Amino acid sequence: MSTQTFIKKIVIPFQDVDAAGVVFFSHLFRYAHETYEDFMKTIGHPLNNYLGNNYFILPLKHAEADYEIPIMYGDELEMTLIVKEQGNSSFTIFYKCINRSGKLCAVIKTVHVAVSTESNKPVSIPDDLRKVLSDYS
Amino acid sequence: MSTQTFIKKIVIPFQDVDAAGVVFFSHLFRYAHETYEDFMKTIGHPLNNYLGNNYFILPLKHAEADYEIPIMYGDELEMTLIVKEQGNSSFTIFYKCINRSGKLCAVIKTVHVAVSTESNKPVSIPDDLRKVLSDYS
Amino acid sequence: MSTQTFIKKIVIPFQDVDAAGVVFFSHLFRYAHETYEDFMKTIGHPLNNYLGNNYFILPLKHAEADYEIPIMYGDELEMTLIVKEQGNSSFTIFYKCINRSGKLCAVIKTVHVAVSTESNKPVSIPDDLRKVLSDYS
Amino acid sequence: MSTQTFIKKIVIPFQDVDAAGVVFFSHLFRYAHETYEDFMKTIGHPLNNYLGNNYFILPLKHAEADYEIPIMYGDELEMTLIVKEQGNSSFTIFYKCINRSGKLCAVIKTVHVAVSTESNKPVSIPDDLRKVLSDYS
Repeated sequence: MSTQTFIKKIVIPFQDVDAAGVVFFSHLFRYAHETYEDFMKTIGHPLNNYLGNNYFILPLKHAEADYEIPIMYGDELEMTLIVKEQGNSSFTIFYKCINRSGKLCAVIKTVHVAVSTESNKPVSIPDDLRKVLSDYS
Repeated sequence: MSTQTFIKKIVIPFQDVDAAGVVFFSHLFRYAHETYEDFMKTIGHPLNNYLGNNYFILPLKHAEADYEIPIMYGDELEMTLIVKEQGNSSFTIFYKCINRSGKLCAVIKTVHVAVSTESNKPVSIPDDLRKVLSDYS
Repeated sequence: MSTQTFIKKIVIPFQDVDAAGVVFFSHLFRYAHETYEDFMKTIGHPLNNYLGNNYFILPLKHAEADYEIPIMYGDELEMTLIVKEQGNSSFTIFYKCINRSGKLCAVIKTVHVAVSTESNKPVSIPDDLRKVLSDYS
Repeated sequence: MSTQTFIKKIVIPFQDVDAAGVVFFSHLFRYAHETYEDFMKTIGHPLNNYLGNNYFILPLKHAEADYEIPIMYGDELEMTLIVKEQGNSSFTIFYKCINRSGKLCAVIKTVHVAVSTESNKPVSIPDDLRKVLSDYS
């Protein structure tokens, strides 16, 4: 049950369109990650905290997207972030991409794993991060 | 049973690295698509043939990637393309991304659907395209 | 004498850093163009109005940048747009890129030319566009 | 007087086209830099040698481009690199971008400065690098 919601607005820039005249599919992963960055900053865990000086990092293990309708130049999108499936050392995030007509354009999913910078093996996600993530599940 | 193999070599350019010092995850989808473009040209179906003047187009319906080991600046990769799961109006491609040590860095999967430019509904993939795709399955 | 000022805020995303750990130089041109897009929309001339259905388009003829200090992941920048050197069929825009310490990181310059979609030759910039551009000079 | 020539071939990928249906202007800087990377590797000075462990780095101080004719999806370009204007601590490179019809599409110029990683001030370019650069002037 989601107690909190995180939404980022994206306006499609000129260069994100491809030779077919629609947004190139890989850019959706970029929009999702920019949403994730803003989210992590908002919850007090900016990605700068997880860049190698920390005892663990948070690399992506998996990413996927389902494309429902084409996105055009200038479209104004809302990316809604929902945390799902928290494991001991991993968490999964869904991003629902909605356009101004309220239509679902795409759903993106990313799986992050906490990995020790020393042993290069999975480590438990600390309680404070786990707690705040669950507020957005 | 694969009768033919298609491989594209990629050398990681300077700008594809992110703030964590490794290749940003969405670029793998770009490498996969560039492999697909070269492949389609090689088999006599360049993407220019499927850009709106044709009676059908070939948009992506789904894309996903599993990340095994980080990719660094300057890494020389081989992207091996394998066609899988041909349906009546869709096909799935896997791309295995191998570095020079022979290690699997990532596997990418894309699902393409043939869609009528008139009705906007799925159409059967023509026999000539289906045949040549199956040579790489 | 500038009567109006247009500023866009940019936060450097994860993927804009290169193998040297700083923002890759070509992204500054992207930030400048995104500022230009927002500006043109704000002054009532969204770029969608200049995309081939119009009797003229506004392609770039020239672009340049001077880089003063490196830009890092997470930096919050202000891009200030100033219109300069309006000719009969062209105009020049400067973008000053300032970081939160108030330091000048880069100056970008772009030159746009109004080109007839029919003759492919330069045409005069209409008075309404010329007038509103001069408000930001 | 040029004694040697360096050329890189570029095929325009699907995603480099913008909402106007032509290659987005900033990508030319990327193509130029990829040409520079290949060049530096070819002459025995791969950029990995200038990434912070060295006593000096080679950041860009200036970049500019003149755009002559639009570049389209699938265009095959030749980027010819010419070294010009070597100073004590800087060098300038021109890249001429020619399409398959032999037409000049764009000229790009980049200025690199050797900067001490310790003092952050300009340093003399070592003789071995200066010598090999002059072979391509």
